Amino acid sequence: MKRHIAVDVGGTQIRVAVFSENSIDPLEQKKIMTQGEGKTPIERLVGLLEEMWPADGQVNSIAIAAPGYLEPKKGIVVSAPNIPGWINLPISEILNKKFDVPVLLGNDANLAALGEWKFGAGRGHSNLLYMTISTGIGGGIILDDQLINGANGLAGEIGHVISVPDGPMCNCGKRGHLEAVSSGTAIARYVKEKLETGTPTVFEAGSNPSAKEIAAAARNGDKLSNEAFESAGFFLGRTVADFLHILNPSILILGGGVSLSGDLIINPMRASLEKHIVSPEYTKNLTIVQAALGDNAGLLGALALSLNY
Amino acid sequence: MKRHIAVDVGGTQIRVAVFSENSIDPLEQKKIMTQGEGKTPIERLVGLLEEMWPADGQVNSIAIAAPGYLEPKKGIVVSAPNIPGWINLPISEILNKKFDVPVLLGNDANLAALGEWKFGAGRGHSNLLYMTISTGIGGGIILDDQLINGANGLAGEIGHVISVPDGPMCNCGKRGHLEAVSSGTAIARYVKEKLETGTPTVFEAGSNPSAKEIAAAARNGDKLSNEAFESAGFFLGRTVADFLHILNPSILILGGGVSLSGDLIINPMRASLEKHIVSPEYTKNLTIVQAALGDNAGLLGALALSLNY
Repeated sequence: MKRHIAVDVGGTQIRVAVFSENSIDPLEQKKIMTQGEGKTPIERLVGLLEEMWPADGQVNSIAIAAPGYLEPKKGIVVSAPNIPGWINLPISEILNKKFDVPVLLGNDANLAALGEWKFGAGRGHSNLLYMTISTGIGGGIILDDQLINGANGLAGEIGHVISVPDGPMCNCGKRGHLEAVSSGTAIARYVKEKLETGTPTVFEAGSNPSAKEIAAAARNGDKLSNEAFESAGFFLGRTVADFLHILNPSILILGGGVSLSGDLIINPMRASLEKHIVSPEYTKNLTIVQAALGDNAGLLGALALSLNY
Repeated sequence: MKRHIAVDVGGTQIRVAVFSENSIDPLEQKKIMTQGEGKTPIERLVGLLEEMWPADGQVNSIAIAAPGYLEPKKGIVVSAPNIPGWINLPISEILNKKFDVPVLLGNDANLAALGEWKFGAGRGHSNLLYMTISTGIGGGIILDDQLINGANGLAGEIGHVISVPDGPMCNCGKRGHLEAVSSGTAIARYVKEKLETGTPTVFEAGSNPSAKEIAAAARNGDKLSNEAFESAGFFLGRTVADFLHILNPSILILGGGVSLSGDLIINPMRASLEKHIVSPEYTKNLTIVQAALGDNAGLLGALALSLNY
């Protein structure tokens, strides 16, 4: 029996899971810290793969979900800002030489979209937009049942689309991106800035509430906290309207920590979406749902990539 | 020999061309006015098809490029504002009943993209963004060698993406769309508004210069006319940067009347594009060119659709 090995590399953790061909429940799964013991992240990954390698050697492929800018076809991590040394890293070549099996590579948010399409909330949809909203905003696009990579694997960078020209500074150093107005970071910044001007709220002056704490306060009726979600949802809906005009998906899947705040973000997003679409045709058959695979989306997306190989 | 019949329907003209399988030079081509003689546009189209129908009846299919919102898979024109009576028109069913051959339907800008990809400036590119910039702005997207239709055939509506939130009114009735700041209409409006405030220019107060006249004046050094193109190009580049982030094409093809102004629009667009992309990876291998097929793009796109059928 051929096994599929899926890898999800993040700035904090590396996860590896071994799957059979017939189940999304892994035969074996382990996670380690991305850095430590004086070894490079790639050395640590190789070590974990050696440790978990099936004794009979029957492996179909290694599929890797990695963050940052990648060239999936070439198997190169162009730049992954959270992982030291991962600049122009030919990860597929390195692992292929070591393990002598095909190595597949995909951006983690793109593969999360593929995972939701194959195994999660997007099953049955051929045209899908997946967004992960947490400290940042990322995404993935499936059109006509194909994961969209673009010419160099850089497609789906939907967090860095301009939502408010000349607006708040984004984590990337440019201004006004969707990530700068609708992410968890943006929600926390909204409250922090209003706190400093003395706006009444349950939070104490000088405190730094997280998006999760702000969601809890909003549910308890804190006006400022609700405003922060309304602002994030308004810009999210306005920009998602443009995504619909460009891509016309039949389902929008929201993942990431902020999506767990549910109606707090989805209701203002939906209102703004309806206001900004140019024709009701764009939303009349549009499903909007929360992601189903949670933290496993990247790993299961890597599995989906492996099964399609 | 099977013939391919291509139809390009516009608000002013209906064009029909008969092609062999092996050439993009039509065996026969005719055009008529869309309206007239007390007949409906669909009656006029049927009449022209009957007139041009090959005597031996050997026809592979009829492929139609039509404006407005369509459902290509269902063969329905949902709404074509410039063609009286074309609301929820089952055009494919009507023509299939009449002529007993398969009838294919596509949005005119989407099919122009397909035409440029198959026969024009986009040959050899698998990931292509086509924009037509004239009185309005439309477009079409090819990814992984597939025309992107989206779930309901509404994808590629790139003229109605927000470029300047709460900005100038668009032809569609919403504010700040790309079409409202970067189309020929927007360029003419820019000059008209400045004329009214007494800005020095070669144009007389109260005149209504067209985008084409403004391009000529810009080339002759008229400062206001150059400003109008710089403004249009700036917003175009900023919004195209977002299209690159989402789609990551390897070629951007510019068609439509305004694209013929060449460097006047392309230079400020390119400068703005470089300023707004989040990584140089998006433009380092990006080709930017003018469309090659001119007025024939829709007709040849319909032919391409027919050949792929």
